[in-house]
Amino acid sequence: MKVFITGGAGFIGSQMAEVFLREGHEVVCYDNLILGKREFLKGCEQNAKFRFVEADLLDLDRVVAEIAGTDLVVHLAANSDISQGAEKSDVDLKNGTIATFNTLEAMRRAKVRNLLFASTSAIYGEASKKPTPEDYGPLFPISFYGASKLACEGLVSAFVHNCGFRAVVFRFANIVGPRSTHGAIHDFIGRLVKDSSVLKVLGNGTQQKSYLHVTDCIDGMRFAWDKCSAKHGESEFFECFNLASHGVSNVKYLAQTTVEEFAKAREMKSVPKVEFGEGNRGWVGDVPFTWLDGSRLEALGWKARLESDQAVREAVKQIIRDKLGSKESFL
Amino acid sequence: MKVFITGGAGFIGSQMAEVFLREGHEVVCYDNLILGKREFLKGCEQNAKFRFVEADLLDLDRVVAEIAGTDLVVHLAANSDISQGAEKSDVDLKNGTIATFNTLEAMRRAKVRNLLFASTSAIYGEASKKPTPEDYGPLFPISFYGASKLACEGLVSAFVHNCGFRAVVFRFANIVGPRSTHGAIHDFIGRLVKDSSVLKVLGNGTQQKSYLHVTDCIDGMRFAWDKCSAKHGESEFFECFNLASHGVSNVKYLAQTTVEEFAKAREMKSVPKVEFGEGNRGWVGDVPFTWLDGSRLEALGWKARLESDQAVREAVKQIIRDKLGSKESFL
Repeated sequence: MKVFITGGAGFIGSQMAEVFLREGHEVVCYDNLILGKREFLKGCEQNAKFRFVEADLLDLDRVVAEIAGTDLVVHLAANSDISQGAEKSDVDLKNGTIATFNTLEAMRRAKVRNLLFASTSAIYGEASKKPTPEDYGPLFPISFYGASKLACEGLVSAFVHNCGFRAVVFRFANIVGPRSTHGAIHDFIGRLVKDSSVLKVLGNGTQQKSYLHVTDCIDGMRFAWDKCSAKHGESEFFECFNLASHGVSNVKYLAQTTVEEFAKAREMKSVPKVEFGEGNRGWVGDVPFTWLDGSRLEALGWKARLESDQAVREAVKQIIRDKLGSKESFL
Repeated sequence: MKVFITGGAGFIGSQMAEVFLREGHEVVCYDNLILGKREFLKGCEQNAKFRFVEADLLDLDRVVAEIAGTDLVVHLAANSDISQGAEKSDVDLKNGTIATFNTLEAMRRAKVRNLLFASTSAIYGEASKKPTPEDYGPLFPISFYGASKLACEGLVSAFVHNCGFRAVVFRFANIVGPRSTHGAIHDFIGRLVKDSSVLKVLGNGTQQKSYLHVTDCIDGMRFAWDKCSAKHGESEFFECFNLASHGVSNVKYLAQTTVEEFAKAREMKSVPKVEFGEGNRGWVGDVPFTWLDGSRLEALGWKARLESDQAVREAVKQIIRDKLGSKESFL
């Protein structure tokens, strides 16, 4: 099978590429290297079945040329730094919505029909029902990122119905693990490096979200594709799943875990204190409480290896190890 | 009050402009005249408080310049010919999603915050619940038009939360009445002009949709704005309403009404026969059965003057009168 991964040099994409290559598949990673990093593909470069394309999804002709002959498209590329949207309101329109349209349009032109698409819990906005199931409505996202992903889901649905695609949409929990490039854990570690006596957290620590480890994310996507693909045969289909582990983790847990693991890694005598601020909202557009209902995918037989708190701890350890072990300075 | 209407030379926009002018407001109609018609503004042109701008919403700088100083934006512009999307998949992306982004971004830049936005029942896709309420999920539209309107709703929601807008989103039923430019009624009349002995309908006639007369559409939007605006004061808000009359009308009723009114207008001795075909779907992306639950707006005290069947009959009469009375030939 020939797999085409957009955002293929990114946090999730680069690790997915490794998984597919290990199984003997051909992999093309397409990435503009704005958020993705070439070094994440070190493990892939040696493989004769691997190819990297440095290009932008806004270049439709290029996407059409590169995507031709693909069996499965995994569309991960996006502006994953949600907090940016509030300041540059067109980032998500361009790198989310239009980039996704181009990916789908390129598939149509090149007669490629199989798609895994990474959506997000942010499309639910401030959902009144928690855990939130896939058929929840209304969908009023509060971030430009969530708005863009909702737009993309609609596009995938329309392409399925108009052009015979076979697609699975995944509404991601907060994905954590090695190679992540931003988010609360990174922020906390950065603060500790500057001042390891105390970790000052902006909010009151009560925000809570569903966390999923990146290995579970990749495993869940592949599982769902195999199940849906087998169920529908060659027919067009549109399926949608929340992709989450059990439970949620709050900011207090993230902060406490980070100071504990930081102290261990640095062999400190005492664990840094954590101090909280006020309010439960990080940045404009942030949803303070999310809890995804993952039972739809579980009903097909899949379960995340790590629960939310476990995923956070494993990710914290891995990120600290990568940061302290690398030549890159924190400062 | 100064009102800025996008798609202001169109079917609904031009009639809304007349209503606002009658009440003494200033009105700017912004339209690229791709679907809109300058002649629809004949009734407005004499009014000193009226101004027409022939320009495209894709020209962001122009929108910013023209929208400045506006009290209320009524964003109606879109590719209203849904069936086009299946062939030109980027029409709705450009003239729907990006045009809407530009309208909202122009409002942000010009510090204009009040918005009425025309969405559609097509965002519900093939809803399993009928009548369909506003909090229905999941939202998987099957047309590019529906996908674009869903994208636009998400954008409006994000702009409200990030930029303090005050917005009401209306999910329109099928709007009918004078100055409409396409749709089943127009199609039927066109066929009768070519052959008045029989009206051949492509489908089996069982498709049914919620119809709303354009005068009720405009009245409902204005009613909802007044109510929401008063309720929320100067605070930011996002409200969403289905905009529909009571009941639904099927294609059989549309066809029968058209032949009856056509025969009356032409003073024919007998009413043309109607012959149906097979299947319940018109074009790819069409939703054969829609039924909007309008009770949310009704709970605020509004009710459409005409029920669905009445709206269809009034629109059929008006369209036939306008066509037969005008100098334009049918042929």
